[in-house]
Amino acid sequence: MSAQTYTEPHRVVYYEADDTGHLTVAMLINLLVLVSDDQSSALGMDTQFVNSLGVGWVVTQYHLQITRLPKLGDQVTLKTKATAYNRYFAYREYWLMDAQGETLAYAEGIWVTMSYATRKIATIPTELMAPYESDQINRLPRLPRPERLDPAATTVVKPYTVRYFDIDNNGHVNNAHYFDWLLDTLPAEFLRTHRPTDIRIRFENEVKYGHQVASEVVPTATKTQHQIKVGNTIAALATVAWTTD
Amino acid sequence: MSAQTYTEPHRVVYYEADDTGHLTVAMLINLLVLVSDDQSSALGMDTQFVNSLGVGWVVTQYHLQITRLPKLGDQVTLKTKATAYNRYFAYREYWLMDAQGETLAYAEGIWVTMSYATRKIATIPTELMAPYESDQINRLPRLPRPERLDPAATTVVKPYTVRYFDIDNNGHVNNAHYFDWLLDTLPAEFLRTHRPTDIRIRFENEVKYGHQVASEVVPTATKTQHQIKVGNTIAALATVAWTTD
Repeated sequence: MSAQTYTEPHRVVYYEADDTGHLTVAMLINLLVLVSDDQSSALGMDTQFVNSLGVGWVVTQYHLQITRLPKLGDQVTLKTKATAYNRYFAYREYWLMDAQGETLAYAEGIWVTMSYATRKIATIPTELMAPYESDQINRLPRLPRPERLDPAATTVVKPYTVRYFDIDNNGHVNNAHYFDWLLDTLPAEFLRTHRPTDIRIRFENEVKYGHQVASEVVPTATKTQHQIKVGNTIAALATVAWTTD
Repeated sequence: MSAQTYTEPHRVVYYEADDTGHLTVAMLINLLVLVSDDQSSALGMDTQFVNSLGVGWVVTQYHLQITRLPKLGDQVTLKTKATAYNRYFAYREYWLMDAQGETLAYAEGIWVTMSYATRKIATIPTELMAPYESDQINRLPRLPRPERLDPAATTVVKPYTVRYFDIDNNGHVNNAHYFDWLLDTLPAEFLRTHRPTDIRIRFENEVKYGHQVASEVVPTATKTQHQIKVGNTIAALATVAWTTD
């Protein structure tokens, strides 16, 4: 059995692009969640139905491999499938393609169902997975983990306060906003002249409205190591590889 | 002569909505600029052509009257026309309509052309306006001005630092981000239980990457008075009327 794929068209518009005209990473993350949501709704598994089972879908980890980010005005296609799952984890794949069908970015995500009662990971309700025709397997692919920050390295830290508009319908910070915090620690000139090729991120703890977060970065020659902390707790850990091509 | 209208469909998606599921004001502003841009491109007046004349379009003032904000999943229609202009100012109207054609929001905007050489207002190049078939008139409609903050009132102030991703293709802060700063000064509980009905905003001075801004608010019974300051300079002034209907 092979999981159903789902595709939808998208046009990159000005508020999705940075000052070089390229789609931002934060917006790419938004688009991945959007195509997942739209597949789920098309299969009758919309947020309202999921919530009626006392759970909500949450991403715990992403691995993105980016060949090229599309530009303002580009017509692209988003594609996804809920490839496989086991008792606690669902493994989803994503493709971002240009108008000629060439893959611009490939992403993998690990999703869990969080219980609204306990705010902890719950067994994935089987009725939630049936329509996707995902493979039920014991050992899911493991995504490469982001690196722990080198404790000997010099760290740049920027503080951010979680805003009301960072919170989405799920009551916690929209995952895309982590990338605003993560990447804003890098100088504008770096961001204008480098493009991300490989992004690994793990969401370890929830961030909520009003929290003060510290976004920490250790830059090295070809990659940057990042963490988001709330007090002494690591909320997210990420490693980004860059090129100047 | 009457100006050409331009319409386009839009679907409200999850990252455009707040935690109550309603389209955010910041995203509404993004959509107004989007439909303007798309009309301009359709008429051969895209950003590249405008910039080739040494100028860029900038909004100086908006007046929004909102009956109802659409919700997550709603199909809406954006409509605009470049109604009238004179030597220095262009007056544009906007409508946001639901699937039945009912107007959810009506907005008016005043646009100017800014010279890239001087960063000051320039005479609007006549070739820029011709395709819109706008009325050329001496006296444009005047938008109601936002109120100066009551100096005797207690002011709530929140600081923000302009992020790289707040800057758009024009090299200054995307107008929509002002609303993140303006409205985030209000308590989440207020934002969840009130909806804006009338928004007046004037953009008085540019805000740039790295600037520290102070977002100040004076709440009264039925409206809130706002200003964004960079040091002692007022960058934007806004008044928002609210209802709990």
